[in-house]
Amino acid sequence: MRSIGVFDSGVGGLTVAREIIRQLPNESIVYFGDTARVPYGIKSRETVIRFSVENILFLLKHDVKLICVACNTASSLALPSIKNNFRVPIIGVITSGAREAVYASQNKRIGVIGTKGTIKSRTYETEIKQLDRKVKVTAVACPLFVPFVEEGWTSGEVVLSVARSYLKPLKDAGVDTVILGCTHYPLLKPVIQEVLGKHVILIDSAKQVAFEIKKILTGEEMLNRGRGGKHRFYVSDNPEWFSSLARRFMGRKLTNVRKVDNV
Amino acid sequence: MRSIGVFDSGVGGLTVAREIIRQLPNESIVYFGDTARVPYGIKSRETVIRFSVENILFLLKHDVKLICVACNTASSLALPSIKNNFRVPIIGVITSGAREAVYASQNKRIGVIGTKGTIKSRTYETEIKQLDRKVKVTAVACPLFVPFVEEGWTSGEVVLSVARSYLKPLKDAGVDTVILGCTHYPLLKPVIQEVLGKHVILIDSAKQVAFEIKKILTGEEMLNRGRGGKHRFYVSDNPEWFSSLARRFMGRKLTNVRKVDNV
Repeated sequence: MRSIGVFDSGVGGLTVAREIIRQLPNESIVYFGDTARVPYGIKSRETVIRFSVENILFLLKHDVKLICVACNTASSLALPSIKNNFRVPIIGVITSGAREAVYASQNKRIGVIGTKGTIKSRTYETEIKQLDRKVKVTAVACPLFVPFVEEGWTSGEVVLSVARSYLKPLKDAGVDTVILGCTHYPLLKPVIQEVLGKHVILIDSAKQVAFEIKKILTGEEMLNRGRGGKHRFYVSDNPEWFSSLARRFMGRKLTNVRKVDNV
Repeated sequence: MRSIGVFDSGVGGLTVAREIIRQLPNESIVYFGDTARVPYGIKSRETVIRFSVENILFLLKHDVKLICVACNTASSLALPSIKNNFRVPIIGVITSGAREAVYASQNKRIGVIGTKGTIKSRTYETEIKQLDRKVKVTAVACPLFVPFVEEGWTSGEVVLSVARSYLKPLKDAGVDTVILGCTHYPLLKPVIQEVLGKHVILIDSAKQVAFEIKKILTGEEMLNRGRGGKHRFYVSDNPEWFSSLARRFMGRKLTNVRKVDNV
């Protein structure tokens, strides 16, 4: 009856939580959003590792049976060096996205968009190359996308102009598949699709990650036997702001968001 | 021979540090930028107070004789409740900006722009009303301005469109004076001036704050007697990123930025 732990720098990881709930309706989730220190995307590897370890320790206090790092930046910068330090299985979002993209691409030209931290780490590129050395990867950071989404500017000429500027290298490279390497980006799908063209496949790793979690829990015989999961949401700051954004990311309002004083 | 302490959520406070150095060339500065937890503008009063107290305690370890809160959000949300808890004089940026605006305005219609936290706190409005009850204040949050400045998007059609959208209430209100209530905004002066028109006076509190610090140190006979101040810059993350942005905010490169592990 133990819960699945999910953490993110803020609200973006709710897109992943939503998918876990959809695929595993009998599982309970403990979600932690580090809204006091959001965003992670501009911060150093060292700092993202420190924050991630603190978030994991918080989730472990809730006796979780598996931890999902829903944040692409934390998955890229922190996961490789910390996942073997803990006994609990820790799943990031990079491998799933990379695998799905390699599977989807016909012309072996894959684009990756993400925060500065994610792109600079080249973790997606490394994962993709391990699956298929022949794939050509074009990766660009889109640092204004997160503030645009959080401020609700997800359509219109302004965000289209910014998207055109950011995505030009992907168009020039002729990619047929693009990984949305940040949990905020699915909310910009219509804009990104308009700029890249309808033929380009956009990969949002949430579905694949939830599927992977299901596989692990099934394999380890750790699935909940009871019916109907119960979900708890914790943040390090601004529970009201988190709740109000939740509707956009989660598709429904969250009423039971609690602020925790220290991580 | 003690130093002046300056803190900010990140790099923006360098516009204030630069002005202190210009007006008080024999003073030494200890600057702290909380780049591990930047930005403050979207965070709650409670969290901004906690971060500000930690930053003040860090500066006090360096035996500073006066502390300048260069961040508008921290000045608005934290300063009123914490300034009397410390023996060292603590100067924010709100009072100076409010005073200069009231002095400059002819038609008694003043605009204020800032982060969500600064605008929601209504601190500028309170300060202005205390100086002149007849002034009509129009205050709007411009949350995308900070990411635009940090990403170097300070001109062009995209930022102009966003500025037109944000500043419309100020134009509609017929303000003749606007307080740039965030240390990042002076870098958007040309854009803001273009949208508002040449007749509108833009108030950037850095000069006035430095002048106030000079006045206090002179009054208390605490000015340095030696010649040529020495400046130290500390950050909680990403010293290289801070250095690279410093050129834009400070007008010169900083080579001696040190990362401190805990605040």
